[in-house]
Amino acid sequence: MFESAEIKHAIDEKSFEQQLPALREALLEAQFELQQQSRFPVIILINGIEGAGKGETVKLLNEWMDPRLISVETFDLQTDEELARPPAWRYWRKLPPKGRIGIFFGNWYSQMLQARVDDRINDAVLDQAIDAAERLERMLCDEGALIFKFWFHLSKKQMKNRLKELEGDPLSSWRLSPLDWQQSKVYDKFVRHGERVIRRTSRDYAPWYVVPGADENYRSLFVARTLLDGLQVALQEQQRPQRHPHSAPLVSSLDNRGLIDSLDLSQTLAKDDYKTQLATEQARFARLMRDKRMRQHGLVVVFEGNDAAGKGGAIRRLAAALDPRQYHVVPIAAPTEEERAQPYLWRFWRHIPPRGKMAIFDRSWYGRVLVERVEGFCSQADWLRAYGEINDFEDQLARGRIVLVKFWLAIDKETQYARFKEREEVGFKRFKITEEDWRNRDKWDQYVDAVCDMVDRTSNSRAPWTLVEANDKRFARVKVLRTVNEALEAAFAQDL
Amino acid sequence: MFESAEIKHAIDEKSFEQQLPALREALLEAQFELQQQSRFPVIILINGIEGAGKGETVKLLNEWMDPRLISVETFDLQTDEELARPPAWRYWRKLPPKGRIGIFFGNWYSQMLQARVDDRINDAVLDQAIDAAERLERMLCDEGALIFKFWFHLSKKQMKNRLKELEGDPLSSWRLSPLDWQQSKVYDKFVRHGERVIRRTSRDYAPWYVVPGADENYRSLFVARTLLDGLQVALQEQQRPQRHPHSAPLVSSLDNRGLIDSLDLSQTLAKDDYKTQLATEQARFARLMRDKRMRQHGLVVVFEGNDAAGKGGAIRRLAAALDPRQYHVVPIAAPTEEERAQPYLWRFWRHIPPRGKMAIFDRSWYGRVLVERVEGFCSQADWLRAYGEINDFEDQLARGRIVLVKFWLAIDKETQYARFKEREEVGFKRFKITEEDWRNRDKWDQYVDAVCDMVDRTSNSRAPWTLVEANDKRFARVKVLRTVNEALEAAFAQDL
Repeated sequence: MFESAEIKHAIDEKSFEQQLPALREALLEAQFELQQQSRFPVIILINGIEGAGKGETVKLLNEWMDPRLISVETFDLQTDEELARPPAWRYWRKLPPKGRIGIFFGNWYSQMLQARVDDRINDAVLDQAIDAAERLERMLCDEGALIFKFWFHLSKKQMKNRLKELEGDPLSSWRLSPLDWQQSKVYDKFVRHGERVIRRTSRDYAPWYVVPGADENYRSLFVARTLLDGLQVALQEQQRPQRHPHSAPLVSSLDNRGLIDSLDLSQTLAKDDYKTQLATEQARFARLMRDKRMRQHGLVVVFEGNDAAGKGGAIRRLAAALDPRQYHVVPIAAPTEEERAQPYLWRFWRHIPPRGKMAIFDRSWYGRVLVERVEGFCSQADWLRAYGEINDFEDQLARGRIVLVKFWLAIDKETQYARFKEREEVGFKRFKITEEDWRNRDKWDQYVDAVCDMVDRTSNSRAPWTLVEANDKRFARVKVLRTVNEALEAAFAQDL
Repeated sequence: MFESAEIKHAIDEKSFEQQLPALREALLEAQFELQQQSRFPVIILINGIEGAGKGETVKLLNEWMDPRLISVETFDLQTDEELARPPAWRYWRKLPPKGRIGIFFGNWYSQMLQARVDDRINDAVLDQAIDAAERLERMLCDEGALIFKFWFHLSKKQMKNRLKELEGDPLSSWRLSPLDWQQSKVYDKFVRHGERVIRRTSRDYAPWYVVPGADENYRSLFVARTLLDGLQVALQEQQRPQRHPHSAPLVSSLDNRGLIDSLDLSQTLAKDDYKTQLATEQARFARLMRDKRMRQHGLVVVFEGNDAAGKGGAIRRLAAALDPRQYHVVPIAAPTEEERAQPYLWRFWRHIPPRGKMAIFDRSWYGRVLVERVEGFCSQADWLRAYGEINDFEDQLARGRIVLVKFWLAIDKETQYARFKEREEVGFKRFKITEEDWRNRDKWDQYVDAVCDMVDRTSNSRAPWTLVEANDKRFARVKVLRTVNEALEAAFAQDL
């Protein structure tokens, strides 16, 4: 895999100087075009052998291009804000927006490789990390991102020579512990595991480029040319390539009986029972959230449901059990300009709570497979791939010790009609009803299909959907609280 | 000051229940109107005596209003990301956008009071903190924010009774060390210093409301009514009140000689000298940034200047001395939607670097007193008050141990013309010249006035402006680097 990178490549000073001006001009042009179009972000991952010129090359790219449109991010020690959230959060918060270039030093590959070389993880865990990286990159590419993955390489002998040179250079003091690398053992392990990672994560949409690191001129031109070629092609495409979605239609059932129809919406709770049970569940919830085991977990509660199904009321009853400092409610509306310049999931990642806290999402990332699907706000390809991306996302939350509880509040068409009418008539409820609500109602059956698909494709033991029979608000509110409590207790029990 | 709050106020259950529905409806209406208008944010500061119902009231407000449009923020222990930046950064990052309500527990007042009560600071430092709070609030109000400051009060006897009650209640366990408060000494100190703070920070635009805390019904209604009245009035105003700016025109000089005219733009640097000096200053800069004393400081470098004065080139020479992981370049363009929903300075605060790092601002917060003033993008009142706000802002940076270096790159009209023409002709420079540049050029004299005013009003020993004679690019680049180096060395020398 590294054979051709270890060959003695070199470009002499004269021919380097000759090529440089045109190359720099073309890079600047491409960068400007990227900014003007603002259609996609560019993510450059820097990895490889110590001493192979990673830092120098990044420095050079910043000199050759316009540094105002590049952000260079390092990820070494996690801050305490990052430590309190799932590992991927730190990458999401630093993603470059469309039109910009982000250079990630110390990215997910460095983390997994360093951990494996230090024997902090075994091969199985490395494979899990590889798998997670692949999913993340595929998602980013599907969202339009252009990813370059560079592996800066040196043979063992080249590395030893290089490190000896660097020792004398005070400018190299910022480098990561080059001393470790003097031991050939570390080199061997790094290259062996590096090979495995490269082999398993080179994909047509995000291939690895192995950069021969020994000759400065060669490696600088190599990286710059690769970048330029990739940029120019991507800038000329009408749109970033999309893989073709499966063309068989989704059919939720052949007998016209869906999940939602099978709910017993006639369930009710008498007022007295409601008062007692609500108080009991709220006290239980308050106790659980103050339990010291909660310090190890975040809690994310997702509310989806028919319009007028009572999401707001359920959210208030859930929140009422807590000190307002323990939670945030995140209402999901149309994305802001900064959110539109990022991959779809970015605007949810930014609200993921730290350990010990709760975030309540009033509507959520499921918008893509519900309203966006039904209303045609995104392409079929987009919402079809969303199921997989959402599963990956929720998997990362679970690994990050976030307890995730997802509710679909279901009412029937008659109940909705009655509630819409009430909203139109009662003063302070009138702001809860709009023309749009009536329009959505016309698409009731399409929403039923979308909900069934959503539950079928995204419910699993780690993040199950709870369908809540919500014709009776009291019944629904208590069921919501009880479900959250059970989920927390189950999570705490697993901690033991 | 607290006399009338210590009177036995009470509202019986029946009359409370009677008033409640209409009040809640009105609060919801006002909150909805606030969101619809999205003209200003609401900031509620919660302070006062332990046990006086602060937490309970906030909880209640969340139940009575729509919690999806409220965010409750606490500020107790600083995270390491916050510790690495000036103290005010943590408040800026949590400011509610226009249309939303932010409730700040443990805000600037709690911090200063707790510090004073614990004798960590003396009266003089408390006065500085009071002064800073006043400036911050005045700025927020000038930007349209509606601020409510509530002081929840109890007499000493009321407090003692209340804490005794709470001891038995498991739900109160999240409260801050109520035990301290059992000592009347703490109460006395807290009230004494609290009085001083309230007296000095009650202003027409952001008055304090002292809430009698003994009776739950009374205090709940008191807060809710205050909030409602304030909201309703603010919502009906065509625009948030603006104080009247001073009406005497700014005159930079009576003899038509400005600061800029007095520069000797003929200064040059020969190519050989340039190469040597640039290399020397870059090496010096690299060394200073790696100095361990740099861990105590952030560095912010601001570039302003005539169009085509060579800001980009100077920035590249400065950045080239460093590892790209040590800095971010922040190009200031039109504000995004999220930035427009915040006070003017918010979009700069978000890019303030942590200790040990540099942020280079390519154009900056001075836009308001330059392009926005000249082009009429903001009102005269806005740019006139900006001088004071900017001085306050930079003062906070300085106290937060940020070294601030500000450059105005000056060229004369002929040099600008030549550079514009060159840009139009040379391939990869053509994206640097737009119609707008030519239009700005027509307002050359107005810009000269604006620059003179800016320097006169915002240059001071802590954050001086450096005027850079930039007709000769080489001269300018070396002067920029040397000035930054001298500023760092001066800051390090003061550390001793």
